Amino acid sequence: MATIREVAKQANVSVATVSRVINQKGYVSEEARTAVLQAIEKLDYRPNRVARSLYQKKSGLIGLILPDITNPFFPQLARAVEDVANHHGYQVILCNTDEQFQKEEAYIQALESMHVDGLIITTNYSDNPNYANTDVPIIALDRVLQGAIPTVSSNGYAGGRLAAEWLIGHGAERLAMITGPAKFPTIRKRHEGFEEAAGDRLVASIESMFHFQDALKAAEKLFSQHTFDGLFAANDVIAAAVIQAAKQRNIAVPEQLQVIGYDGIELGEMITPPLTTIAQPIYQMGEMAAKLLIERIEGGPIEASHHELPVHVIERETTKKKG
Amino acid sequence: MATIREVAKQANVSVATVSRVINQKGYVSEEARTAVLQAIEKLDYRPNRVARSLYQKKSGLIGLILPDITNPFFPQLARAVEDVANHHGYQVILCNTDEQFQKEEAYIQALESMHVDGLIITTNYSDNPNYANTDVPIIALDRVLQGAIPTVSSNGYAGGRLAAEWLIGHGAERLAMITGPAKFPTIRKRHEGFEEAAGDRLVASIESMFHFQDALKAAEKLFSQHTFDGLFAANDVIAAAVIQAAKQRNIAVPEQLQVIGYDGIELGEMITPPLTTIAQPIYQMGEMAAKLLIERIEGGPIEASHHELPVHVIERETTKKKG
Repeated sequence: MATIREVAKQANVSVATVSRVINQKGYVSEEARTAVLQAIEKLDYRPNRVARSLYQKKSGLIGLILPDITNPFFPQLARAVEDVANHHGYQVILCNTDEQFQKEEAYIQALESMHVDGLIITTNYSDNPNYANTDVPIIALDRVLQGAIPTVSSNGYAGGRLAAEWLIGHGAERLAMITGPAKFPTIRKRHEGFEEAAGDRLVASIESMFHFQDALKAAEKLFSQHTFDGLFAANDVIAAAVIQAAKQRNIAVPEQLQVIGYDGIELGEMITPPLTTIAQPIYQMGEMAAKLLIERIEGGPIEASHHELPVHVIERETTKKKG
Repeated sequence: MATIREVAKQANVSVATVSRVINQKGYVSEEARTAVLQAIEKLDYRPNRVARSLYQKKSGLIGLILPDITNPFFPQLARAVEDVANHHGYQVILCNTDEQFQKEEAYIQALESMHVDGLIITTNYSDNPNYANTDVPIIALDRVLQGAIPTVSSNGYAGGRLAAEWLIGHGAERLAMITGPAKFPTIRKRHEGFEEAAGDRLVASIESMFHFQDALKAAEKLFSQHTFDGLFAANDVIAAAVIQAAKQRNIAVPEQLQVIGYDGIELGEMITPPLTTIAQPIYQMGEMAAKLLIERIEGGPIEASHHELPVHVIERETTKKKG
């Protein structure tokens, strides 16, 4: 992408002159104006968001509200949103709410007063009244919001079923789950699917936050109170904690305990043994959310559609091989 | 923190009335105004950034430019900046440049036109001319920028020395390093310190990006061409890749190969064996950058000081025990 400086150089005028032409403000000679317009065309220069906002009453900004940037799932999701948004000429502003309602509220106010063209919310307060009151187009990502807000998530129910079926199909007989925070509907569905497919084989479930240290404690509690040979973790960070805790108790993975995670983040490749997991299509989820939002910003129809993308197993080494 | 809704409820008026009082716009009865001001005082309500910007010509926003949010070091750093900024009444807007100069330039323009009160730059283009041209206070974090810009980083040179001394002190005789991108001065210093303290024991150095897949390739190249029993990785993600690659070649860590990382991110605890690493004081770095910036925003003196914080070893299980 050409910059305003390159345009100025090509047109042999100052940056200020290019700026006056773009903003249609102040005196510019006809000769200079023609040179600038030719340079803009030749270099395929797209005026920055400030200039564009003057033309189009748009800021060219999309706000992306994230609940926890230290959970690696969200940075990967954000990267996908950014790729698609940038490709369509939008910049993405990230806000981290740290799972706090008041931070979320304050960021939404801030983003609105910056005149963002749209918001993507991957946050946890599905009943946040701000969403109903705003005129800015909104897409919910990884979370389901109330009201007429289009949603993109993965099929957590199918993912939970798949995890149970995979463990059972590979010889596990006594199943356990660390569920993730039960207050989020998209997370609860992973539990519901697992529970249904596990049936009588389900020995125990325990809740944990999506943080490593919290998950370590949950895993230790589970190990001290129950015996099981297959475990489903509601995300890959929890799965990493289970593997760590199993190691400390000299429980061999996958020989004595098979572990399956959920998310498909890069962490699963980094740990030893590498993690078998139910992979969300992270990139496609971010891509679809960005595309839906941009369609709405650019005047597309408003539909409260819920897009639930399919998940699949990535088989690595924390579950047994078949046969 | 109280919200505008709570103020309205306490004062027994509408949110719109509270807003009119704060913004000093439109008609409000004396009675209502008094009730609102009392409620604001009682609830210790701090008007949001929009209102404050009307009072103080400040936006209450700090822009934080990050080079790569998928590198877990940066989200941890961002969390510290956010904590301190929030504590002082500022919100933090994150922008991910994906290590691209043009994205960085576009985000800086966008943040300036949003009237951010200050910028924290953790990015890679130390010669970005935008920094010299901007009136907004800037602090450089984890990177050294040109010109009179205060900088906060960790002491990479001392960290590199410490890594070599630790490996040698624990019995390693043939040392190797995966260096990280050489174009960044703060990263190069880790290499320089290691090289100097390793002396004749240094067998090989190889460069890698700070991404897991890239580091895996670098590690495989190193293993195929050299023999060594101690390795220093320029960040913890690279160290995780080395451990993974060693596993695949049946090289026992730490018995046959001792590995030491750099950063001290949570990933080091998640992998097996848990990683010995040179820990940067990540939280303090973010905290200091935020404090320095807020001092400058609020009228403090402008000094081009360079704050280099000390590092320390976190001993875990990828290096041998002493004695």
